[in-house]
Amino acid sequence: MKKLLFTPGPLSTSPTVKEAMLEDVGSRDFAFMNAIKDIRNELLHLAHTSKEEGYECVIIQGSGTFGVESVVSSVVGTNDVLLVLANGAYGERILKMASIHKLNHHVLRFSENEIVTAEATDAFLKAHPEITHAACIHSETTTGLINPVGDIGHVCKKHNAVFIVDAMSSFGGIDMDMKKMKIDFLVSSSNKCIEGVPGFAFSLCKKTELEKAKGQARSLSLDLYDQWAGLEKNGQFRFTPPTLSIMAFRQALKELEAEGGVPAREKRYRANKSTLDQGMAALGFKQYLSPEIQGHIITSFLYPDDPRFNFERFYQMLNDRGFVIYPGKLGKTDAFRIGNIGQIFPDDVKRLIAAIKDTQSRL
Amino acid sequence: MKKLLFTPGPLSTSPTVKEAMLEDVGSRDFAFMNAIKDIRNELLHLAHTSKEEGYECVIIQGSGTFGVESVVSSVVGTNDVLLVLANGAYGERILKMASIHKLNHHVLRFSENEIVTAEATDAFLKAHPEITHAACIHSETTTGLINPVGDIGHVCKKHNAVFIVDAMSSFGGIDMDMKKMKIDFLVSSSNKCIEGVPGFAFSLCKKTELEKAKGQARSLSLDLYDQWAGLEKNGQFRFTPPTLSIMAFRQALKELEAEGGVPAREKRYRANKSTLDQGMAALGFKQYLSPEIQGHIITSFLYPDDPRFNFERFYQMLNDRGFVIYPGKLGKTDAFRIGNIGQIFPDDVKRLIAAIKDTQSRL
Repeated sequence: MKKLLFTPGPLSTSPTVKEAMLEDVGSRDFAFMNAIKDIRNELLHLAHTSKEEGYECVIIQGSGTFGVESVVSSVVGTNDVLLVLANGAYGERILKMASIHKLNHHVLRFSENEIVTAEATDAFLKAHPEITHAACIHSETTTGLINPVGDIGHVCKKHNAVFIVDAMSSFGGIDMDMKKMKIDFLVSSSNKCIEGVPGFAFSLCKKTELEKAKGQARSLSLDLYDQWAGLEKNGQFRFTPPTLSIMAFRQALKELEAEGGVPAREKRYRANKSTLDQGMAALGFKQYLSPEIQGHIITSFLYPDDPRFNFERFYQMLNDRGFVIYPGKLGKTDAFRIGNIGQIFPDDVKRLIAAIKDTQSRL
Repeated sequence: MKKLLFTPGPLSTSPTVKEAMLEDVGSRDFAFMNAIKDIRNELLHLAHTSKEEGYECVIIQGSGTFGVESVVSSVVGTNDVLLVLANGAYGERILKMASIHKLNHHVLRFSENEIVTAEATDAFLKAHPEITHAACIHSETTTGLINPVGDIGHVCKKHNAVFIVDAMSSFGGIDMDMKKMKIDFLVSSSNKCIEGVPGFAFSLCKKTELEKAKGQARSLSLDLYDQWAGLEKNGQFRFTPPTLSIMAFRQALKELEAEGGVPAREKRYRANKSTLDQGMAALGFKQYLSPEIQGHIITSFLYPDDPRFNFERFYQMLNDRGFVIYPGKLGKTDAFRIGNIGQIFPDDVKRLIAAIKDTQSRL
């Protein structure tokens, strides 16, 4: 049975995106190198910038986490100090990287149901002038909240800190202007709001900062600078690229443009989200976050108060009906998650709601 | 135009392998977890072993190099000493990893046109009793030679050294019995002789040695032990897996079995190789390696003596005819490479030879 994925990704992609993988392509072949070039330029364009403006796109094999680790472990030097802004599992993950790579670091922690504020970041940076870099998650997939990275970016610049943003589940689904938001490194992956298939992450980098990463990386595979230098040298990856994921991604970028670009996609995702909100509220489900900080990418719903509710059974019943939802990831609260991103439309959300209603009658 | 890839991978795969990617699948969904489980068991089976016999399969996102680095940077502890056996670019790459991760290490180097010998390894290990681990490439894709890893494995055991084999371009194309060959860690990738698409590497590991890697990794993404522990805990990847590459790979494993397993595939590759040898010799091309050490996976051909020969033009002319060959990678000698692996058959090799002959008349 064909299934629709209401997850934070890998998500439902269009048939034509997947069909772009039906032809083998050589990793050092011209056709493939052209695809890489197109993708790198187009991703910068989506972030409202370009090579000419001093920004660079680096693609790295693996999952989004590989991309984040390639940035964090390459750009924070031995004498630098990283501030990790954390309010969920993905912020904690960056903290774990900082610890594994023995980076000098601080953490400024918020509750999972609170956003990272520019004010608190400002105060922390003021109190810790040794901080050279700050990292923050944009859409915290743990809960679904959106951190105000634009405001935080301005605070970072005020204190001269390089700003790293994990925009994994937001880029392409929320309009982001890297320059205006004062972001130096923006990381996302192939299988999120651009609606490609998994296989790689990408980092959009301010070139002057990227150049400082030369020789600083803590691993061979995740060396951001060397990966970039390789792509610049001959248009090729240093090591085998996920050729077919790249071809699918180029098709996904074309389809994003055909949809009307990021603003149109954001509008569709927001329509999915409001359809979900209304439908789930009507069924009595409560959301974990307060609406002001809840984003339109993914939503955490509390387990219902009904003692008959069993998540595994609920998941399986929905799965049997062709709908894949996502388990929760909160520290202390039982919840499940429903994503609004990917090739899903308000009518699909309505069908999901109908399926959820149907399961409720069978508890 | 549909192209045939005569490369060391990504290579030509069957239509049905690629078609296995036409359906989206959730990364935490049962159907996907079953695919992971099947793959992990089947890969051990191909190496003539199993979980019951104390071996484990760990899949890691990214290219083959990511897999090798995950092993090298996870299993060699602070007080261990690694011996790198090098006779080509891939051996040198492991050496680079050892250096980046500041592992205690030695290197025993051979020329690119010589195999690593068990005798020299034995003497070196005898002279350096501090060595705890040794790493060697099986099929050195730089040239195409096959190192005698079985003999080297026995020498390693004699000296109590953990044996790591990069079998990237050989596993699935050469029958390998991990236990008999005394291999503790065998690394390969999805887009080589199993004939899947790129997206991940895998390591077949002796469990007692894998367990020693706990807490030793030098990165989060490439932590071999944690990746294994995650797969064992709930059958899922710690971080987003290349879902569709995994689905394609399961199909590829089924097709390998249908072909008659590794022995049948090796036979086909050997038939490709002898067709290539005869055809290229008839056209006057000379091989870089002497035949005794040349493997059946990939062959390095010297540039012809003809001053009119231009590799870029040669490559392009073949490309225009639907054949993708591979540039050389030798330290000092001009050569190009032709692979025999993937969904190519002796008749395809004959067509390639005819195309090469045709280009010769147009120099």
